[in-house]
Amino acid sequence: MSINEFSSLEKCKQDVETITHFYEGIPAVVDSLAASCNEEGSFDHVGPSPVPSREMVVQIVNQARHILFPGYFSSTRLDLVSLEYYLGQETTKLFSNLASQAVLSIQHDCLRYDQACTQCKQRGHEIALEFIRALPEIRNVLSGDVRAAMEGDPASSSHDEIIFSYPGLFAIMVYRMAHKLSELEVPLIPRIMTEYAHSLTGIDIHPGAVIGKSFFIDHGTGVVIGETARIGERVRIYQGVTLGALSVPREGGDRLRNKKRHPTIEDDVIIYANATILGGETVIGARSIIGGNVWLTESVPADTKVFLKKPELVYTGNNT
Amino acid sequence: MSINEFSSLEKCKQDVETITHFYEGIPAVVDSLAASCNEEGSFDHVGPSPVPSREMVVQIVNQARHILFPGYFSSTRLDLVSLEYYLGQETTKLFSNLASQAVLSIQHDCLRYDQACTQCKQRGHEIALEFIRALPEIRNVLSGDVRAAMEGDPASSSHDEIIFSYPGLFAIMVYRMAHKLSELEVPLIPRIMTEYAHSLTGIDIHPGAVIGKSFFIDHGTGVVIGETARIGERVRIYQGVTLGALSVPREGGDRLRNKKRHPTIEDDVIIYANATILGGETVIGARSIIGGNVWLTESVPADTKVFLKKPELVYTGNNT
Amino acid sequence: MSINEFSSLEKCKQDVETITHFYEGIPAVVDSLAASCNEEGSFDHVGPSPVPSREMVVQIVNQARHILFPGYFSSTRLDLVSLEYYLGQETTKLFSNLASQAVLSIQHDCLRYDQACTQCKQRGHEIALEFIRALPEIRNVLSGDVRAAMEGDPASSSHDEIIFSYPGLFAIMVYRMAHKLSELEVPLIPRIMTEYAHSLTGIDIHPGAVIGKSFFIDHGTGVVIGETARIGERVRIYQGVTLGALSVPREGGDRLRNKKRHPTIEDDVIIYANATILGGETVIGARSIIGGNVWLTESVPADTKVFLKKPELVYTGNNT
Repeated sequence: MSINEFSSLEKCKQDVETITHFYEGIPAVVDSLAASCNEEGSFDHVGPSPVPSREMVVQIVNQARHILFPGYFSSTRLDLVSLEYYLGQETTKLFSNLASQAVLSIQHDCLRYDQACTQCKQRGHEIALEFIRALPEIRNVLSGDVRAAMEGDPASSSHDEIIFSYPGLFAIMVYRMAHKLSELEVPLIPRIMTEYAHSLTGIDIHPGAVIGKSFFIDHGTGVVIGETARIGERVRIYQGVTLGALSVPREGGDRLRNKKRHPTIEDDVIIYANATILGGETVIGARSIIGGNVWLTESVPADTKVFLKKPELVYTGNNT
Repeated sequence: MSINEFSSLEKCKQDVETITHFYEGIPAVVDSLAASCNEEGSFDHVGPSPVPSREMVVQIVNQARHILFPGYFSSTRLDLVSLEYYLGQETTKLFSNLASQAVLSIQHDCLRYDQACTQCKQRGHEIALEFIRALPEIRNVLSGDVRAAMEGDPASSSHDEIIFSYPGLFAIMVYRMAHKLSELEVPLIPRIMTEYAHSLTGIDIHPGAVIGKSFFIDHGTGVVIGETARIGERVRIYQGVTLGALSVPREGGDRLRNKKRHPTIEDDVIIYANATILGGETVIGARSIIGGNVWLTESVPADTKVFLKKPELVYTGNNT
Repeated sequence: MSINEFSSLEKCKQDVETITHFYEGIPAVVDSLAASCNEEGSFDHVGPSPVPSREMVVQIVNQARHILFPGYFSSTRLDLVSLEYYLGQETTKLFSNLASQAVLSIQHDCLRYDQACTQCKQRGHEIALEFIRALPEIRNVLSGDVRAAMEGDPASSSHDEIIFSYPGLFAIMVYRMAHKLSELEVPLIPRIMTEYAHSLTGIDIHPGAVIGKSFFIDHGTGVVIGETARIGERVRIYQGVTLGALSVPREGGDRLRNKKRHPTIEDDVIIYANATILGGETVIGARSIIGGNVWLTESVPADTKVFLKKPELVYTGNNT
């Protein structure tokens, strides 16, 4: 063994020792992490109650999508013979997954907040059945949303393009599912659903909002529709539109819980990009048009156009 | 068997019966879903025509990315010996996947709209070959986009950081692929591609837009670039910039199809955050600078700076 | 064999020949791609240095999330007995993955920029150990962020809902990890982390920013917080808020590198939706409130409310 070989072996041994040495630091970290789980004000989920799974909720959204738009997102080709079998299989899977997540989310609430837990299992299955019973109606309403997109966007080239790729349609679909579950008073799951859509589309619709038929959101990134917003039929909105609350005091946001804090938009209104409409008492009257960048905290009568007065721009040569 | 054990067994039996009872509700739902697939105005994809797969289109984007930036996103290490083999393998896979999706999307259009279907298979393969033939040029243009990001962003610390993590570069890469496919008149796939990038980046570039070399988008969330926008070379834009259409009438968006509805941005223009530029006849002249939040519906000559006149702000003490 | 059968066989043969013919076009494309990898100004990653993996970095973020919020995102149920074992296992995996990626990112910098590479392996492990040692403190700070969300958002219905679904909390969590790694001078990884969060949330926080305790971002899409921004404690911001740089000259962005270019926000400030605050010398004094859409490039004293003067709106009947 040459001196070089020896020193290289030594080097390698030292390396291993050094790295082993680092691993010895882990147990102390783990102890301190475990200790912090017992501290007041620390958030963990340790205990008998299993939690709903975000991954399963995402899967439920995608299973429902297979049923709402049969043939578009499945890898197998559907024909009239296989359709009913396919729908049967998918609906059963959806029912079963949703029932189990609904049970978990109800139990989670019970155990976490020490409420009486009566028949969680039965209630979870009831909810899942009511949800799948609502699917034909949701499907029907979504067809109207697809047609509204086709009419409202000159860049759309087919209904299929809208179904395959429009983020607005995806966000509205997920909202319509989540709203149904929110009406059925399921905890946690509706918001996990809409935040999943928010993450994919930049469109943030609270499950509690009430939105009429033939709704179209174009582009959509940055749209915020608050919990107590009410939107009529055939409304069209563009990217960056906020239907929000006036303001939330530094302390005591609690006082505002369950109050109407977000605006009402009546039928056939169009709201252009980046307009902001705030306040629970603000009503945008039917058939009105709100221009881009408008910032509104007051009601507008029906059949009104509201535009920003042309802002004064400063033009200068480039070298000044 | 004690009374307790018995009653617990009874309880369990009842549970099973209750839940079985819920499952009995499923067939009626399935019938009504299947029935709704035959209704007028309902969207499904049932029939002989297989559909392009969104998942495969996403895979195509990522395969092309492996080829456009070799070594950055692959799990295997590349050296000069393995490079050609790697590129050969990846390009063949890409060709074959794109050809099959292109065939599907052309067939889909044929069958869906009852057009004459002539040699879909051949055309799909032609398209795929023309696409991979364009890759060296796209690669070249993207190198210019990387350099533009390095020059335009003082927070960038290396070209590699830009390639690994900048959302603007990703959106531009996907747009450049999708635009090529859009020139080759492939249905559906280009828009599925750009909406995939939109979903990951918040940047919405229509595949039909025409964008010159050395384009840089910083941050990017909320950017919208419309179908008929034209952008010159060395243009830089920031988050929330809209290059959009003036307005879309409540009915008859159809009239606007295939008209130039979005602005033209000449060489070396900079557009700061959340500026909105609208209209097909609006031209921003070369080397002009458009300030943040500016809202423009008219042309601007070359070498002009346009800023919002400092808005009047209301300052008050916090307790008033 | 009938004539028809014959011609159909012929057709099939021709088809195969046609398609084979297309495959013959691939090698030329591969040659030209391989050639372009040797060109000046082209980006590839061919050579002895392995690269950090974006996928592994994403996995590291999610492993750290399992440790920071135990029980929320794991598929297995945790109890007090299994908790320490779980934390031990997850922390060891995290340490080992982070160490290997840190080593790769340091080596990558060495080899790429011809710097002297001294003890990359040791340094990578040191970094990973310092990072996991910081986890209890990060966990503690994040608990404050969760409580700030509960207080600041009247639509929040439980701490769990915030942890499961609020994008703002996710973006802040990833920022707090990435900032720690940025303090430890790890190349590439911090930015890959924050851009992963940006992609999922639309919230773009540079790892270099310094952000105090109890930070709340509501909705969040479009938020940009620049590299040299400084944010105090108990600050609350809404969607579309930019804390950005004044402007970047057309050439010579380089001059601005490492200078303070982004504003300072003192304790207890609230910044409403789509406000833009720019410049390295701009300071928003403690307890101030910045209204929606405000565009600020100057400092504001403590205890001030700044609102947009009500913009003049043009109201017209709908038919004019």
